Amino acid sequence: MSNPYHFQTVKHIVHGAGSLNLLPEKLALLDTPIKRIALITQPAIEALGVIEQVVAGLAAKDVEVLVVRDVEPEPTIGNVEAVFRDQIAPFAPQAILSIGGGSVLDAAKLFAVRLTNDQPLREWLGIDLIRNPGVPMILVPTTAGTGSEVTPNAIVTLPDEELKVGIVSRHLLPQIVILDASLTLGLPKAITAATGMDAFVHSLESYISTKANPISDMFAMESMRLIGANIVEAYEHGDSIKAREAMMLGSMYGGLALTAAGTAAVHALAYPLGGMFNITHGVANAMLLPHVMAFNLDAIVERLATVARALDLSGPADSADTAAQKLIDQIAAWTAAVDIPQDLRVFGVSEEHLDALAVAASKVKRLLANNPKALSLDDTKAIYRRLLP
Amino acid sequence: MSNPYHFQTVKHIVHGAGSLNLLPEKLALLDTPIKRIALITQPAIEALGVIEQVVAGLAAKDVEVLVVRDVEPEPTIGNVEAVFRDQIAPFAPQAILSIGGGSVLDAAKLFAVRLTNDQPLREWLGIDLIRNPGVPMILVPTTAGTGSEVTPNAIVTLPDEELKVGIVSRHLLPQIVILDASLTLGLPKAITAATGMDAFVHSLESYISTKANPISDMFAMESMRLIGANIVEAYEHGDSIKAREAMMLGSMYGGLALTAAGTAAVHALAYPLGGMFNITHGVANAMLLPHVMAFNLDAIVERLATVARALDLSGPADSADTAAQKLIDQIAAWTAAVDIPQDLRVFGVSEEHLDALAVAASKVKRLLANNPKALSLDDTKAIYRRLLP
Ligand SMILES: NC(=O)c1ccc[n+]([C@@H]2O[C@H](COP(=O)([O-])OP(=O)(O)OC[C@H]3O[C@@H](n4cnc5c(N)ncnc54)[C@H](O)[C@@H]3O)[C@@H](O)[C@H]2O)c1
Ligand SMILES: NC(=O)c1ccc[n+]([C@@H]2O[C@H](COP(=O)([O-])OP(=O)(O)OC[C@H]3O[C@@H](n4cnc5c(N)ncnc54)[C@H](O)[C@@H]3O)[C@@H](O)[C@H]2O)c1
Ligand SMILES: [Fe+2]
Ligand SMILES: [Fe+2]
Repeated sequence: MSNPYHFQTVKHIVHGAGSLNLLPEKLALLDTPIKRIALITQPAIEALGVIEQVVAGLAAKDVEVLVVRDVEPEPTIGNVEAVFRDQIAPFAPQAILSIGGGSVLDAAKLFAVRLTNDQPLREWLGIDLIRNPGVPMILVPTTAGTGSEVTPNAIVTLPDEELKVGIVSRHLLPQIVILDASLTLGLPKAITAATGMDAFVHSLESYISTKANPISDMFAMESMRLIGANIVEAYEHGDSIKAREAMMLGSMYGGLALTAAGTAAVHALAYPLGGMFNITHGVANAMLLPHVMAFNLDAIVERLATVARALDLSGPADSADTAAQKLIDQIAAWTAAVDIPQDLRVFGVSEEHLDALAVAASKVKRLLANNPKALSLDDTKAIYRRLLP
Repeated sequence: MSNPYHFQTVKHIVHGAGSLNLLPEKLALLDTPIKRIALITQPAIEALGVIEQVVAGLAAKDVEVLVVRDVEPEPTIGNVEAVFRDQIAPFAPQAILSIGGGSVLDAAKLFAVRLTNDQPLREWLGIDLIRNPGVPMILVPTTAGTGSEVTPNAIVTLPDEELKVGIVSRHLLPQIVILDASLTLGLPKAITAATGMDAFVHSLESYISTKANPISDMFAMESMRLIGANIVEAYEHGDSIKAREAMMLGSMYGGLALTAAGTAAVHALAYPLGGMFNITHGVANAMLLPHVMAFNLDAIVERLATVARALDLSGPADSADTAAQKLIDQIAAWTAAVDIPQDLRVFGVSEEHLDALAVAASKVKRLLANNPKALSLDDTKAIYRRLLP
């Protein structure tokens, strides 16, 4: 019997290689006609040549487009505010379109609600603090990682506090998502690795979350199957549309899972690594994943064993302990196969930083509450220390 | 590689036994405050005692409720128009709430759009003919069958033409779904059987549809797993909340699958049995299912074999042909186990009606187009004839 839970999602998902071409006609799915749209993207995507095509396609439908390219990777709150003030607000778009990685999608989501809520972003840090729905949004991810296109979350960096913080609101969900894996065929190897592992973490953390539920479990499991079977292929043969499609779908499913169940200690411990040492979100998550799971092991051995069996890592002859351990070993093996280091020293972290990291992680209470085991400061330090071998 | 397809769903799904109690607080998920709501339900649900509780819970939030109980099972277009004109329109609700089986949910969906579109229902028969979005809807299914709570479809009976016809529009999707399986604990056996088989048909037809896609496949497969493992238990032990929850979730997943992939020849052939002989929707579908699948077999043997394996009906030693046949046999066995007859004579059908039935079925072109094999009139008659043993 399930305790009641709330599953949120996006009304329209258009999926398939080449589906970005359908964008102009899909505007008709919005309930109001759109004539001015801000397109939030980033230089790497412009270099693919797709932005011109999209602008031309929209122009053919008499839609005026402002292209915005100044959102930084893992943007600071100041960067988001500045781009809003200088570019978005003066243009006063009727809708927001974003084509990019999680960083630009997150900023785009904040722009959409900022247009209808005259409040500084700082007042929204936390859950459900955005009052009015925003203008309609269409999100097109170009990494297969964050699942941001289907989550009610936007993450901003607070440089003064050396912290990354989430803004969570149902008003951050778009009306339309376009999942076109052909956009990711040229995603560089390091980004493929980091974003792909981030997506796997979303699904595994959702699956073992204290808030896991039947719907999130289904998405989490399918996501892990897709990513497990394709991450190394996507990394080694980035031009495989088959592997890219599986990663893109797996990433979206991870976003759907985490929206319903939440991420947990891996993400909580990753945030300070991003805030203090600029370690990419997915890299920090991937490094931490095997160690946080080893810490959680005694509380979730059956859950991990179920994943191991579903991913064909383990057969019926294995005990639950053996199966769970095989999953943890496989995660470490994937991390190695996609060249993510297992050493925080590479990023300038050393023993003397562990206290500050652990204290910062302990403040991410929203996510730690989802973890199947409580972490003391000492537990947290011990996990970070595994990454100073 | 997937050809582009469109997956539509509902933004908010609240799931779990007892979740109906959360309804008053969940109103806050709607973007506008609601003070007048029409509650479309049916006598069998009032008899459960839940309607009073809902009305009291809403009253405590200062929401005025009009309870409407005059929608007929498998309603005619005239019934829907009359209830709208006499009860809904004069009350002018700001939102529609419906608690009931597919028949009342479908009518409720039409009321929601009828409030914002001054057009006779007849003009909407077909796809995408409703212009304006309706008032917000909250749908609470009390059968585990149609999946209507998550589909953009409403089915009406045209008594003069002896036909059932679909109205399809994205404006028929609700804003909030509440899936509370405790409402189905007292569902009579015959209705449990018919609606449960209907849900299975949705998923299997979606899975073999020419429009099947990765997202619909995931929902269809999970739906078939849940229903296959629980339909006999739900039938024999209707008070098993575990079985009822599985059926409810399986039914919703079936709705999500069919929205993206469509149902096919089973539904096309079932409609005239409903229109001409008043055979319950689920019963007609269940009777036809094994015979339509046997007809389709050579085109879909691999798909059916995959289902058979996923449902543990077949092991690795079986050939695809054997596995597919085991699935068809199992479907016939479920039908027998839930006491659905395999004889149309019970309902007054005889050889002389087959021409008219086949001609009527051949007009359901929207669904026949999804079938993996084309059906001639003779093929159709031969399928019906299998049910005159
Ligand atoms: N909203 C959420 O639910 C959620 C969840 C997890 C993470 N996040 C946040 O998302 C951000 C990370 O997003 P990300 O991992 O997608 O990375 P990103 O958006 O920062 O992009 C990483 C790099 O990849 C480049 N890039 C993106 N797409 C490309 C393509 N198709 N081809 C070539 N280059 C491309 C970008 O220009 C950028 O330099 C972080 O801020 C993280 O905190 C949000
Ligand atoms: N919109 C869609 O996508 C879709 C899909 C398939 C079928 N349909 C349509 O839905 C209708 C069938 O709906 P249905 O199968 O849910 O049956 P139904 O709504 O006609 O209900 C059948 C009977 O069950 C009773 N009942 C319902 N819930 C009960 C409960 N919890 N306890 C006791 N009695 C209960 C009702 O009073 C009714 O007498 C048909 O018109 C069919 O064409 C719609
Ligand atoms: Fe993440
Ligand atoms: Fe049906």
